[in-house]
Amino acid sequence: MTQQNYRKMWEALDLDLDAHDGLLEVLGKFYGDIYLSQQGRLAGAEYLDFVLSEIHGLRIQELREAQAAGRKVIGSFCVFVPEEITMAADAIQVGLCAGAEAGTEQAEQVIPRNTCALIKSFVGFKMAKLCPFTESCDLVVGETTCDGKKKAYEAFNELTPTYVMEVPQTKSKAALELWKTEIRRYLAEVEKLTGNTVTAEKLKQGIKTVNARRRVLQRLNKLRAASPAPISGRDALLINQISFYDDPERFTAKINELCDELETRIAEKQGVADEDTPRLLLSGCPMAVPNWKLPYVTESAGAVIVGEESCIGTRNFRDLVDESGTTLDEMIDALAERYMQIDCACFTPNTERLDNVTALAKDLNADGVIHYSLLFCQPYSHESMKVDKALQNEGIPMLSIETDYSMEDVEQLKTRIEAFVETLA
Amino acid sequence: MTQQNYRKMWEALDLDLDAHDGLLEVLGKFYGDIYLSQQGRLAGAEYLDFVLSEIHGLRIQELREAQAAGRKVIGSFCVFVPEEITMAADAIQVGLCAGAEAGTEQAEQVIPRNTCALIKSFVGFKMAKLCPFTESCDLVVGETTCDGKKKAYEAFNELTPTYVMEVPQTKSKAALELWKTEIRRYLAEVEKLTGNTVTAEKLKQGIKTVNARRRVLQRLNKLRAASPAPISGRDALLINQISFYDDPERFTAKINELCDELETRIAEKQGVADEDTPRLLLSGCPMAVPNWKLPYVTESAGAVIVGEESCIGTRNFRDLVDESGTTLDEMIDALAERYMQIDCACFTPNTERLDNVTALAKDLNADGVIHYSLLFCQPYSHESMKVDKALQNEGIPMLSIETDYSMEDVEQLKTRIEAFVETLA
Repeated sequence: MTQQNYRKMWEALDLDLDAHDGLLEVLGKFYGDIYLSQQGRLAGAEYLDFVLSEIHGLRIQELREAQAAGRKVIGSFCVFVPEEITMAADAIQVGLCAGAEAGTEQAEQVIPRNTCALIKSFVGFKMAKLCPFTESCDLVVGETTCDGKKKAYEAFNELTPTYVMEVPQTKSKAALELWKTEIRRYLAEVEKLTGNTVTAEKLKQGIKTVNARRRVLQRLNKLRAASPAPISGRDALLINQISFYDDPERFTAKINELCDELETRIAEKQGVADEDTPRLLLSGCPMAVPNWKLPYVTESAGAVIVGEESCIGTRNFRDLVDESGTTLDEMIDALAERYMQIDCACFTPNTERLDNVTALAKDLNADGVIHYSLLFCQPYSHESMKVDKALQNEGIPMLSIETDYSMEDVEQLKTRIEAFVETLA
Repeated sequence: MTQQNYRKMWEALDLDLDAHDGLLEVLGKFYGDIYLSQQGRLAGAEYLDFVLSEIHGLRIQELREAQAAGRKVIGSFCVFVPEEITMAADAIQVGLCAGAEAGTEQAEQVIPRNTCALIKSFVGFKMAKLCPFTESCDLVVGETTCDGKKKAYEAFNELTPTYVMEVPQTKSKAALELWKTEIRRYLAEVEKLTGNTVTAEKLKQGIKTVNARRRVLQRLNKLRAASPAPISGRDALLINQISFYDDPERFTAKINELCDELETRIAEKQGVADEDTPRLLLSGCPMAVPNWKLPYVTESAGAVIVGEESCIGTRNFRDLVDESGTTLDEMIDALAERYMQIDCACFTPNTERLDNVTALAKDLNADGVIHYSLLFCQPYSHESMKVDKALQNEGIPMLSIETDYSMEDVEQLKTRIEAFVETLA
């Protein structure tokens, strides 16, 4: 499809075309600087480059063709929204734009100034008409994982239909029951939206497809334990980011190929950095496309990132749904139990996250951890102090970073990260 | 009891005596400036002055005497912790110090800087050993009403035993079930702590006692609809604040007397301000003792405050527990239903609050509303925008204030509030 036809599509989606052109231009330049400039990239990165270059083009076209054929598109930006159910109703689940400064002034008219960049971006992209994913959605599904999102969805619902799932705040038996009810309620909502019935057979397939995507991300994660690091943190983050946008089966196949290539590299002791390059685990808040600021600064500071302990990282793929269920009830129970294993900072207490971060740092042979909290993200800011303590107890150094999407603090971050990396070398 | 004996008591509670002396001195001066300076105060205010002057003295002595007799003291600072249950187990529920800057630097070592002043204060008072209520507690009971508190209780639990109740985030049937489970769980916890069994008879009495306190606060609230305003907003706030600390039966009796006096004043058309003084409703975050900043600034700016739409205000007393239950199960159901009527900003959606604020402003013949959000309080900051819209639709002007406990912005607040009041005159 030509660029001209994409413009017609964006026009049909009522995007602000001029502003969107500007966004794509910045995104392209940014991608060139941060991604294409890398030396010795994997052949499999071609897939990443293609998906990213077509993220507002071909992928949107696919969504629109699916819609023309009667399918529905559901948008979310949280790993608690059970894609298995979405798929079982033959709908498509996609992420929403939330990784760049966009429409900030407009967003601040409906949500407070002291809101994290991720939420402000998600609302801003909608208000500034810049996200073809958001505009393609037949339904947006929110959740109650933090005060900022919980209340922002109320404002968002005035802009576009927004359905909210109640994620509990503890992991008690009663909380699990609430969550099961919420999954059933979501299932009914998706059935209503699509006109399709979620059968046991379809849900089983949905569980298999999403588990397969989780497995390939697990495979990638494990391969990153190798030294020298076989893939840059930037590319690995991009893979995790793309997992929320691209077709799940295509994604799984392509990333499996990329993992094959990684295995060859590892066998040949090839890496993206020398063996003595300090290895860092990123931990904390999710980094949505194109929020590559911290990985770029970190890898420019002489370190290599070997893992992402975040929702756009391990929290998205660590746990699989049990596939042994045969009835809808059994599968819903299995889904509920899997999702309640997520170690999101929305839970109290959330001590398992401390164990998981520590174990992950060790498994990936990380020399240190950078904890990343978005400014005004209270759950992860709180936990950064606990993670620091837990890592200290294991002799793993941690640097705590609090930032947003602006580029103003890049030099300051660079100085702090370089100093941290020096202590690890 | 002499001041000397109080010092011994505070020493036994391991307070930082010198810092505590300093706090009481500031508090006393503050109280003199803001309260004792008022003209034509009610005779019933003598009770308020006494309670406040003895808040760290006589009341603490009472608590200690109760403890010596085998009773337990439970601290909380949220209207979701069901005092009926606490009382039914013969324990005493009290508020925790959270209304002044204290131990800020220490608190910021365990909770993020971007935390609201209320939470920072509650943690700071503990860490700086300045609150005899906190130090008297056999158990602190937290809840999950906001991210800031939810995660702060985790840190608090490392300082002193802290039990957390999960307050749901929606008002669905499943959420109500979760909350019922949480009330039962709390009941079991209090039984364990006290060694007492909560019987239907005792719970019935607890419900009656707490409802009686709510009724007298409702009575006070209604009397404030009179013009000229028969009581200052400062004194009314203090009554609401004291309701969390003083013995419930004494409080109810004393405030009923004060209301009798108010009725006489109203019949005689006596007031604390001229009939044409602009009448304001305060709405939003709670103001804990001694957070009198905004009421003082407001009433010094030529307005009179006629209501507090907050947890230390209407949210604490608007709804009664149904008293018709005879079995424990029936009473627990009634409790759960009553607490789930609270229009806390923790719920999504929380549209009933918009109706309630609008109705309250009208009932109290308010000329305008000041919405008060603590800096970094995301739930109430979000809702301030909605409240503004709802009030605008009814032609009621609103001023949105975001502040904390520091005195740095007093002059700026004064200027803004004076300008707002002028538009109402």
